[in-house]
This record gives sequence, structure tokens and C-alpha cells, in this order.
Amino acid sequence: MTFATSFVPDIRFGEGVHAGIAASASALETRSALVVIDGFLAASGLGEQLAAQFAAEGIAAEFFSGFAGEPKLAHVQAASVAARGKDLVVGIGGGSALDIAKIAACLAVADEGPMHYALAANPLPKRPLRKIMVPTTAGTGSETSATTIFAGPEGRKLWIWGPETKADLVLLDPALTVTLPADLTAWCGLDAFVHAFEAATNRNAHAGAALYAHSALSLLTVALETAVRSPMDIEARGKILLGSCYAGIAIDNCGTAIAHNISHALAGLTPVHHGLATALGFEATLEWLVEAGTADLAAAARACGLADAATLPAFVTGLMDRCGIVRALPKAFSAFSAGDLAREMRAPENQPMRRATIRDVTDADIDAIAARMMALPKTL
Amino acid sequence: MTFATSFVPDIRFGEGVHAGIAASASALETRSALVVIDGFLAASGLGEQLAAQFAAEGIAAEFFSGFAGEPKLAHVQAASVAARGKDLVVGIGGGSALDIAKIAACLAVADEGPMHYALAANPLPKRPLRKIMVPTTAGTGSETSATTIFAGPEGRKLWIWGPETKADLVLLDPALTVTLPADLTAWCGLDAFVHAFEAATNRNAHAGAALYAHSALSLLTVALETAVRSPMDIEARGKILLGSCYAGIAIDNCGTAIAHNISHALAGLTPVHHGLATALGFEATLEWLVEAGTADLAAAARACGLADAATLPAFVTGLMDRCGIVRALPKAFSAFSAGDLAREMRAPENQPMRRATIRDVTDADIDAIAARMMALPKTL
Repeated sequence: MTFATSFVPDIRFGEGVHAGIAASASALETRSALVVIDGFLAASGLGEQLAAQFAAEGIAAEFFSGFAGEPKLAHVQAASVAARGKDLVVGIGGGSALDIAKIAACLAVADEGPMHYALAANPLPKRPLRKIMVPTTAGTGSETSATTIFAGPEGRKLWIWGPETKADLVLLDPALTVTLPADLTAWCGLDAFVHAFEAATNRNAHAGAALYAHSALSLLTVALETAVRSPMDIEARGKILLGSCYAGIAIDNCGTAIAHNISHALAGLTPVHHGLATALGFEATLEWLVEAGTADLAAAARACGLADAATLPAFVTGLMDRCGIVRALPKAFSAFSAGDLAREMRAPENQPMRRATIRDVTDADIDAIAARMMALPKTL
Repeated sequence: MTFATSFVPDIRFGEGVHAGIAASASALETRSALVVIDGFLAASGLGEQLAAQFAAEGIAAEFFSGFAGEPKLAHVQAASVAARGKDLVVGIGGGSALDIAKIAACLAVADEGPMHYALAANPLPKRPLRKIMVPTTAGTGSETSATTIFAGPEGRKLWIWGPETKADLVLLDPALTVTLPADLTAWCGLDAFVHAFEAATNRNAHAGAALYAHSALSLLTVALETAVRSPMDIEARGKILLGSCYAGIAIDNCGTAIAHNISHALAGLTPVHHGLATALGFEATLEWLVEAGTADLAAAARACGLADAATLPAFVTGLMDRCGIVRALPKAFSAFSAGDLAREMRAPENQPMRRATIRDVTDADIDAIAARMMALPKTL
């Protein structure tokens, strides 16, 4: 066995650790910082708290909230310009805020714009700005991964990848996540669960990443339903936030598989929440996947507290039921056919996830999966 | 619950990964490197291999083997001078080579010598040289910790601590460990086991570090005896090497406890192998320790495959028996009394380990432990 694991940043976990954001920036010798933060968070008490924190540390902090929904080219361009001349970038919010912050920290010191680096066309600058990541959803694991996603000029999902995008410090504060609504908690939590599951079981899986993936599966299994039903339960919120972070470490090393191929393909047609799309794609393919019968699948099942992999499909369906996940796509999907989805699933940028899947994904498999996905009600 | 975990470096694991040392240095933009390497390794085929590797990458590599036994002040001074003007330091060997390499990488850019930084008297330079660590014993975990140990001018054990000492890249190659004799394999393996156990159960223990500590306990439990009995078993060698690395991460975050207080105190009297001294101190105090009955002790026992903490003392004694560990101290200990050891156990530099122990360590406890330790045969 041979494996490589990429560095894991400093992590601080616990209720209230976000009070140390500016002090942590100061310890990293920061005099000026760009704070990429979701607009509704900036407008909340948190925005004021942060401004006071940075002022107390004598750090000139500029807030950037010029984005909405999943990151677009214009958002990452604007954030990169705003980051120029700063010492550090803080990302606070969901995966979009973190991804924009990570890209801005790299491109602040670059001669070219985002499209120059998209899809690994060119290497990123070696010495990006320092980064502190503070996730307020438990889902993407962007705080510990080297991946960022944004929509290119034609709306296609692109990525900028590299260890240069990775955080120096991650602050995991469950108190920042208690206001996340039940449906988003469930969708993001399932996204994290699928990250951990795919990283633990795909063709790139290895023991080094399984350490994190199995811990994530265990944390999410025991706490996700509680976090959905009892949003103020700090212990459950903490467990899914830590699980999501560990799942991010797992995909940072081993990537994803078929559920993310489906999820990205769906988003290539028309907007859909990434976590929901991933959960639906996962449920639709899990029975087919576990037929592979690998030792990794059995180990992932055990991490979920199950006796064997054969019980995984029923377990996941039950978990999604208990978390109240409605199996439906947004209404806008009515304009598309199974053939449209199958075409997106075969698009070049989605092939790494197809190839990483532990079973061979034939063209016939893709057609069958696309048909099953597009047979879902389009009622959201 | 609140915790902090310090960054984990890039790790590459597997038979043969040491062939990539110079290429990895090159990827870190290295033009000149200091290679701190055990003398017997430098004189072996490995020394020639490494010289050829570095030459092929166009890196000017200087080899430093001017040390023997545990690091002394003169060794770390000489290595620090040799590292001046280099881009990177590689440490290859046991814990001594790694500790010297880590200190040299920091002090190469410092205005002062080692004693200026010993016992955290002054902060280390913020921008040390890059470091690649390649352990050839499975024991200290120095490759993933922020700690280094060396003997001061009066022979007392001192330490230089700080995240600045930590590796950028760790290469874990079990092929480099197969020549380690059975007794050293057992002593070092027990040292790693105790690192994991103490980090998982002392007063500083937390869930963030337990992830690594429990994995280390599990890996060492299943593979240590096999590695001792079948030295060429690469899979077993790999498991204890990875376990030792994870144990290093665990102590990097939570430190050690009473067994290391005893071990350091013994070494304060006269030389003794650190792993042996730690194993003996651990066995002598474990029954007393598990009376604390904490949840952490129960979890550590489960990581060893045991039903509960009460079975730990017999399990550890059995493991030490099966690994052929002779319960004896070196002959030179005949010159010292239990009172001498008790005095060392109370020395200021050994109090953090005493205080971290999950049970209060009274002066009467120290006298009793010292008496038990010094009653061991002095026949080695």
C-alpha cells in the first residue's frame, strides 16, 4: 500500500471560537485583511462583531459580500481585485464564500484572472495570501480542501485546484450554524456524508484518507438527524460541522465519484442546490454501487454502525427520510430530458468522477441513471 | 467541547517512497540542502543512493552525521551552522537525527544559539528553512511533532518547541525500518504506544487528537508483535511506522503524562534508551492510572480491542512479554537510589508531564513509583 495525504491546516473547534478570528489573523502578522462573508451574515450582528474584533487588533479589514448563490466568474474576479495588497483573506459563510475567499487569496498575487487558472490550465502563484476559513454550514468541507468551484462565462461549472488554495487556519464554531434551516442542514449534511462515503470507497481511496472519512461517516450518522430536528443542539451541530470538515479532508485526498458526477451534471442543466442534487444522485445509485462488494464498502458501512454494505441503501434512504429530504428536483428541470442529463454526465469535466467510481460506469449505466434521476418529480 | 489541533504536514507512505526525497525537495524549490542522517545510514547504500538522487535533481546536498546517541548541545550547534545558507533540511534516521534536523532548520536563520531558545525562553524565528522528515524507526513521532529534545551543557534534557520546528513533508517508508533490531523495534514501538495512550487519556486529551491517537493504538496493537518477530514483514513495519506517526500527531496536540515524567527522570540520572525507559515507567504505573476510570481510558482500551480499561495493565504486560522486553535498567543505575529518581521526577522540567496525568501525582505517589522503578534489576 502506498498513499499520500495533503497537509491538514490548524483547526480550532468549539462554541465561541469565532470570537478569535481577528486575534488569529493578528498572530499571522496581518495588518490588512479581506473578509469574504455572506451578505446576510455581514448584515447581522456578526458583521458588527467582526468589525469590532478587527479594529481592536489594529487590522484594516475590508468586507466583501458582492456575491449570491453559487460563485460566478464576476464574483471571483471582484474578490480577487479587492484582495490585492492585503495580507490575509478570511472566508466566512457557506461553500460559496469559502471558495471565493480561497480563489481571491491566490489571485491577489497573480498576473492573470480566474480563467487562466481554471481546470488547472496553469499553475497557481506559489505564495498566496494567508487564509482563515470559517464555515457556517456543515457541508462542502471547502475549509479543508484544495478545490474551489465557480461558474464560467457560459455558466458551466469550473474549478480552480491546488494546495495554494488551502487554508492556514480553520475555525469550526457550531454556534455559527444553528440558524441554518432544516432543509439546508439536511442537504448540506448529506453532501458531507457523500463526500466521506465516496472518498472512502472510490478507486482512489486509501488508508490515509479513510482515517478522516470513517470519522466523518460516524459523526454524521450519529448527529445529522438530531441537528435537523433540534437546530439549537450545539453538540449535534458540532458533530456534523466536524464531520463535514473531516469529509473535506477525505475528498481533498481521494476526490468523489458517481453521485458527484450526477450532481455536477444536474447543475450543468439548471440551478439546483448542490447538497440536494448530490443526495438524490447518491440514493439513486447506491444499490448499484454496493454490488461491487469491496472491502472499502464494508469498512464504510461499519463506520456508519452497520454490519455490512448490503444494508447501506436502506440505511441511507432511512436517514434521508428522517432528515425530511423531499425527493424532487426544481421545477426548471421540466425543460430537460434524460438525454440532456446523460450528455452532461458524459461531459469532459465530469469524467474524473465517473472514472473514480468503484464500478465501471458504462454508457448504458449513464442512460439508466439519467432516466431514473429525470423521473423524479419536478416540484421544488 | 473546545479543542485545537496543530497542522499535519503532507505525508507520503509506502514501500519505496524514500526514492522521492530529492524530487520532493526539488518541488519545494530547493537548490541546496542539509541532510542530517545517522552515520551508519550515511555509510550504507542509502547514503550513496541519496547523493545520486540529489545530484540528479541538481541540488547541492551536504550530509551531516556528526552526532551519536541522544542529541547534545554541540550536535545541534554544529548542524545549525551547517544549515546556514541552505534552502531545506532533510532529517533521516531515528528521533535524534530528526530532532537535530528540526532544530538546525530553525536556527539556520537565527541570530542566537540553541540555549537562547531552549525551554521556550525566546520565540523561534518565524521563517525557518523547509523540512523533510524521513523516520527510520517507528517510535518518537518526531516527524509530526513540534518538539525536539537535546542535552544541555550539564547533561540535563532540554527541549526546543514550536510549530516552526514542524516538517513540511513526511516520508514514511517501511523499507527503511526492516533492519532495526528486535529490541529497538520493541522499545521504540512501546514508546509510540505510550505516546498515543497518554495523549488520548491525559488531562489535555480531546476528540481532535483522539482521532490520531486511537488509530495509532489500533495499528500498534495489531502489528507491533509481528514487526518484532518478523522484521522483514513490510505490512507490519508499515503499520507501526504509520502508528508512530499518528502518535506523534497526538502528542503534538496533547502531550504526554506520568510514564514520560519517569522516562525523562531516569535519563536525567544516566543514559537509558528512551523507549525502554518509557515502557518500564508505563507498565509500573498503569494499574494505578486506570483506577481513574475515565471515559478516555475506556475509549483507549477499546482502540486496543479491549472491552474495558481494567484489562489494560494485563494487556500491556502481555504485549511487552510477547515483544521480548526485558524488565531491567542499565547497570549504571546501580549508582543511584530511589530518592535520586524521585528528585528528578520532581525537577521543574518534568512537572508538565506530572500535572498532565489524569490522576493527581502526590509526593507519596512519586516516592512509591521511584521505589518500584529502582527495584528493577540493573543488568542491561
